[in-house]
Amino acid sequence: MSTPRVAIAMDWGGTWTRVAVINQQGETLWQTREPNPQGSSKEEYLRNAESLLDTAIQQAGGSVAGIGAALAGPIEPTTGTFYQPPNLPVLDGVSFKSLWEKRFSLPVWVGNDANLAALGEYQFGAGKESADNGRPVKTLFYVTVSTGVGGGLVDNGSVFLGANGLTAEVGHTLVDSSDSALSCNCGSKGCLEAMASGTGIERIARAKLASGAHPGSTLAELDEDQIDSEAVFDAAGNGDALAISILDGAVAALAIGLTNIVHLFNPDMIVLGGGVTDGLVKLDLLSKIHQQILDRTMSELHKEFQFTSARLGDSVGLAGAAALVWAKLEQQS
Amino acid sequence: MSTPRVAIAMDWGGTWTRVAVINQQGETLWQTREPNPQGSSKEEYLRNAESLLDTAIQQAGGSVAGIGAALAGPIEPTTGTFYQPPNLPVLDGVSFKSLWEKRFSLPVWVGNDANLAALGEYQFGAGKESADNGRPVKTLFYVTVSTGVGGGLVDNGSVFLGANGLTAEVGHTLVDSSDSALSCNCGSKGCLEAMASGTGIERIARAKLASGAHPGSTLAELDEDQIDSEAVFDAAGNGDALAISILDGAVAALAIGLTNIVHLFNPDMIVLGGGVTDGLVKLDLLSKIHQQILDRTMSELHKEFQFTSARLGDSVGLAGAAALVWAKLEQQS
Repeated sequence: MSTPRVAIAMDWGGTWTRVAVINQQGETLWQTREPNPQGSSKEEYLRNAESLLDTAIQQAGGSVAGIGAALAGPIEPTTGTFYQPPNLPVLDGVSFKSLWEKRFSLPVWVGNDANLAALGEYQFGAGKESADNGRPVKTLFYVTVSTGVGGGLVDNGSVFLGANGLTAEVGHTLVDSSDSALSCNCGSKGCLEAMASGTGIERIARAKLASGAHPGSTLAELDEDQIDSEAVFDAAGNGDALAISILDGAVAALAIGLTNIVHLFNPDMIVLGGGVTDGLVKLDLLSKIHQQILDRTMSELHKEFQFTSARLGDSVGLAGAAALVWAKLEQQS
Repeated sequence: MSTPRVAIAMDWGGTWTRVAVINQQGETLWQTREPNPQGSSKEEYLRNAESLLDTAIQQAGGSVAGIGAALAGPIEPTTGTFYQPPNLPVLDGVSFKSLWEKRFSLPVWVGNDANLAALGEYQFGAGKESADNGRPVKTLFYVTVSTGVGGGLVDNGSVFLGANGLTAEVGHTLVDSSDSALSCNCGSKGCLEAMASGTGIERIARAKLASGAHPGSTLAELDEDQIDSEAVFDAAGNGDALAISILDGAVAALAIGLTNIVHLFNPDMIVLGGGVTDGLVKLDLLSKIHQQILDRTMSELHKEFQFTSARLGDSVGLAGAAALVWAKLEQQS
């Protein structure tokens, strides 16, 4: 019997469902995506996703090792059960592993999308690049700085799952203990996500403009619905003082949150991904974050980590889902 | 050949060196301790420790499975090399594993004392108690709140070591981001250790008394050299408002630091040990910390952790060192 050659990967976010056929080298042989059937029933969501998986399996042409799925929300890792996913609420309580193993007669593994993004970067992105350069990574912390701020940890090749798979929620660690700390979507306040996410940056910009204290800012010339994190990055790139100060706040918040990560997980690599990270890279702010972390770090040995941006872009979830299939099969063999 | 029955355990702190003979059930069959030869040479320190190990091996009577040592400071876990230990600086760079395997002709494993305390509580303390009651623990975070604040994480029965063994340094996570945040021994400021450790509580009390703003406090009646964390706990127990407010600050700081732990490690058990914890338990402040964590926690599933005080007291380091021996031998078998 010849070894199965490809994994079916799915990345199911709040807006899009993506599927791909990916080989053991992490190369995408085929992929497609469809918008979720917003506002429709659980059955409709599942039908849409399963039809995409059917298509991917056909495209793979018979040599499928298994299905890996990266889902946006909390997942119980053993049964693959979705638990109150904020962006896919109709799927609450669905146990994808048993459901799809029966439906497709293939082994199925599912995981949280931020956790699997960490695995994707470890196996096929920044981690692989480092290993190829003779410096294998043991403990990789991945942060997505995007609409929200999430994270994932890979240690010794496996995702760190804790008791219930709800680990590495760096977006909801405290970075501002003051009475005036910004409230966060999670119900708390002073979280990293409130300061450094795309929605956080947008909210801060709107509040500062509404206060009327920054009449000279180019952001003040925009219509209210044009104010978003991208506009802030553009303005900062053009030297706008308000925009620069908002991003300085995001940089400082990320440095505090990631210093905590360094002291708690002692990673040898930190990878930043997501749309806000792209903006930070463009303005060369990643090196500023790195320096602020080093300034705060308690020992020389803690400072020995690589700090870099993600290599895989939008396809990191698919890569991670495929990496999960290969990792699980290797553990079984 | 009969199975070896006992482990030799060592707990080498800044002041004392303890050794014990411990069986697979975690029972201490024999133990002793000696003060470190303060101010003397590396050779003298090593001679003292090795003589204690010789005595322990004699006491064990021939059926020794291995030596486990819990050392106060950063340790490279593979070679067991001490790395700039702040409380045992003369031992910087000593590779205990190879040194003692040659010296004693026994397998040797060493680890950081806070990491091994976590393993001790997992295997022989609060974790074992929970497992015996039908609720096995998967992910245990141990915090020692003592002269300093340290931590350790056990996941699936193994200590989480990260890249260099320098994990779970919860004492040096940020809990106060204000400009007036207290400076910490690590060089940073606003760390949990500066707010909640024994030395932190003492420093805060001295500063508040020196400000002259609390003439009515019973602490103001003490000589300066009597002001320490124990005096603060005693005064708080007698209803002293200043002492109560200082401990409220420590409680709030611990709740912030441990909420970060919950969101990052998703533990199903948090265990607090150390002398300051004893004081917190006496004043029933552990439940207050627990409640403040629950108030801040982002999801219901994150709230599913047991929160308890350590079972093993002063012997937690020895228990953890013995647990390391049994865990390593099991991994090899």
